[in-house]
Amino acid sequence: MKSYKTIISLMSGTSLDCIDACLINIYDDLKFKVLDSYSLKYPETVKVRLLNLANNIGTVKDVCELNFITGDLFAECVNSLIEKAKINKSDIDFISTHGQTICHLPDKHSTLQIGDISVISYKTGIMTIGDFRPKDMAANGQGAPLVPFADKILFSADKNRLIQNIGGISNVTVLSKDCDIFAFDNGAGNMLIDYFMQKLFNKPYDKNGEIALRGNIDNNWLNEMLKEAYYKVTPPKSTGRELFNKAYAEELYKTAPSDKYDIIATITALTAKTIADSYINFILPKTNIDEVVLGGGGAYNKAIIKFLHNYLPNIPIKTHEDFGIPNKLKECIAFAYLGYFTYNKKPNNVPSCTGAKHHVIMGKISY
Amino acid sequence: MKSYKTIISLMSGTSLDCIDACLINIYDDLKFKVLDSYSLKYPETVKVRLLNLANNIGTVKDVCELNFITGDLFAECVNSLIEKAKINKSDIDFISTHGQTICHLPDKHSTLQIGDISVISYKTGIMTIGDFRPKDMAANGQGAPLVPFADKILFSADKNRLIQNIGGISNVTVLSKDCDIFAFDNGAGNMLIDYFMQKLFNKPYDKNGEIALRGNIDNNWLNEMLKEAYYKVTPPKSTGRELFNKAYAEELYKTAPSDKYDIIATITALTAKTIADSYINFILPKTNIDEVVLGGGGAYNKAIIKFLHNYLPNIPIKTHEDFGIPNKLKECIAFAYLGYFTYNKKPNNVPSCTGAKHHVIMGKISY
Repeated sequence: MKSYKTIISLMSGTSLDCIDACLINIYDDLKFKVLDSYSLKYPETVKVRLLNLANNIGTVKDVCELNFITGDLFAECVNSLIEKAKINKSDIDFISTHGQTICHLPDKHSTLQIGDISVISYKTGIMTIGDFRPKDMAANGQGAPLVPFADKILFSADKNRLIQNIGGISNVTVLSKDCDIFAFDNGAGNMLIDYFMQKLFNKPYDKNGEIALRGNIDNNWLNEMLKEAYYKVTPPKSTGRELFNKAYAEELYKTAPSDKYDIIATITALTAKTIADSYINFILPKTNIDEVVLGGGGAYNKAIIKFLHNYLPNIPIKTHEDFGIPNKLKECIAFAYLGYFTYNKKPNNVPSCTGAKHHVIMGKISY
Repeated sequence: MKSYKTIISLMSGTSLDCIDACLINIYDDLKFKVLDSYSLKYPETVKVRLLNLANNIGTVKDVCELNFITGDLFAECVNSLIEKAKINKSDIDFISTHGQTICHLPDKHSTLQIGDISVISYKTGIMTIGDFRPKDMAANGQGAPLVPFADKILFSADKNRLIQNIGGISNVTVLSKDCDIFAFDNGAGNMLIDYFMQKLFNKPYDKNGEIALRGNIDNNWLNEMLKEAYYKVTPPKSTGRELFNKAYAEELYKTAPSDKYDIIATITALTAKTIADSYINFILPKTNIDEVVLGGGGAYNKAIIKFLHNYLPNIPIKTHEDFGIPNKLKECIAFAYLGYFTYNKKPNNVPSCTGAKHHVIMGKISY
C-alpha cells in the first residue's frame, strides 16, 4: 500500500499573471516531494475581466460566468501538467486549489474566490478540494493568512524562525518556542518598487535589484516615508492595494530625490527597513530570532537582501532553497498541505494567525 | 447499526418568500420519512438585496457579502428546526442545501447559487452538502431540472406517470416505460394568475381558485394568448421570468375582457390549457399517460384542477398527498435525495432531463 498521496495543487495570486500548478507527493510524516510543475498564463481578456471584478467593477452575471471560465482554465492547467509529467490521471488522489480571489472583506466577514471546483473535477476527472477561506471566516477569522499552516509543517524546529515572504506585500510568519505562531503584513513588498520601476525605467521590476544597487539611499526621503501610520500598528494587521496603490506611490513621488537610481535604491530600502523595524518593534519583544527564511519575488532582489543585512546585522538570512523548497512553488506547496488535511478530515487553519475562534476543517470537496 | 441517514434539507425558491427546512430519514431502500419541518422568512432587507442580484443589479461586494448572509440564515433555519424537533445535532448525518439562485445562464454555461456551505457547516456544526447545479452544467447540461431525479425514486412504477408541478412556472416530469425520463417547462404556472390577482383584487394569489370559479372563460382572449411561440417549441425547453414577467402580463391585459372575474378565470384556464396542450403535442405521441400527479401551489387551486379535468377528460389526476408526500415539502425532499446520493458518492443528475453528457456526482461537501 502506498504511504503517500499524489496531489496537484493550484495557486493563482492577486497579480493575475498566471496559474501555477505543482505535482507533489505528501507522505504520512508530512514530508513532501515536488515531481513537476506547470504555469498557465491568463488570457489577456480574462485577466482584464478578473482585474475589474477585483476592483468591484462588474455585474452578477460576470461573477457567474467568470467562476466557470476560471474553473475551465484551472482544469486546463491541471491537464497540461498531467500531459507534461506523463502520468496517469488515476494516480492522482486529488487536486487542491486556492481559487482566484475577487473580493475579500474581513470587516463584512465575507470573502469570494472563484474557479468552481465542480468544473475542475468534471473537466479533469479528479476529485477536487478548494475554497478554503470561507470556513475560517465563518469561524470569525480573517480568512487569511493561510500559508503559516504550511510554514509550521515545513519550518518548525528547535529554532526561532521567521518565514519572511516578499511579494507585492511583505508578510512574515513567526515560528518560535517562546510564543504562539503568529503572522502579519510588514508593509509594501515589491509593489512600490515595481511601480517606480515601471514609471522611471519602463520595466516591470528591478531584476536582481541591479538598479537599486547602482543608486544611493536618500535618508531624508526614507524617513519621510517611514511616517506611514500602518507601520506603527500592533499586529495582528494586514494591508494591500487598498493602501499601497498608485495614488499612494504618486504622493510619495512628490518628495522624491531627483536621481532615478536613488529613488529605486531608497524605495527598496523602505521595503527592507519596514521589515526590520517590524521585527524590532513587534517580534523581538516576544522572542529572539535565530534566523530568517526569505521567500517570494523579493528573495531574488540582492539589494533587499543587502539592506536587510545592514538593518539586521546579527540575524542570519536564508532562502527557501536552503531547505529544499523551490521559492516559486512555495504557495502551491502550502495549498497541497491544506488540501491534504481537508482530505483527511483534519483542521487546517491557524486561529492564532487568522483570529478564528476555532480550529476548523477548511475547504470544500467535489467528487 | 442504523440503516438510515437523518438529513436536514434546505430549499429556497426564486420567489424568495422563505427558506424551507425539512428533517427527514432516508433508508437504504430509498424510502423516506419526514420527521419535522420549519420555515424561516427572509428579512425584508435581505429579500430586496437578493431580488436585485437576481435582476443583475449589484456589485461583486454584494455577491460576496450576501453569500455569507444567506449562509447565516440557512444555518439559523437549521438550528431553529433542531430546536423545534428537540433532537440532538449529533443525530443528524448531514445537511443538504439547494442554495439561493441569483444567476442562471445556460447559454453561457454558468450558474450561481449562494448561501455558503462552509458557513452553514460551521454555524450548525453539521457536515453540509450543497451547490449541486454547477457540476451538471460543467458536464454540458442546463443545470436544471434537478427534481426529476427524486420524481423517479418517488413515483417510478408499472405505470406511465406525469409529475406535474405548478409553481410560478409549470413544469412536468415524464416517467414512462415507453421512453427515457424527460422533463420540460409547460409555461407560466401561477405567475400570471398571481400578477392579475394583485392588480385586480389586491391579493397575492387566488386562494383555492375561488375567484376563477366565479368567472367565465373568455375563449377569444384565451385563444389570443395561446399564440405565444414558447408553447409550440419542442422540448427540451425551459422558461422563466425572462419571458413571463410584468411587461408580458401588461401586454396581455390590453386585449383582456372587462370583467375582472372573467380575467382570472381565463388566465387560470391558460395555465391548465397550456399544460394539457403540451401533453397532447409532446408527450402523448411518445407514451400513453396513466395518471398525473399534481404538485406545487397550483395543486391547491380548484379552478386549475377543474379545467385540467375538462381539457384532459380521460386522465386521472392525483396529488402528492395521495402518495404520502407533503406537497409543500416536495422540493425539500428532492434535495434530501440529491444530498443522499452525493454523500454515498453516487451520480445524481438525470442527463435525459438536463442534457448533460454524463452522469455526474453533483454537489460539494464541507465537513
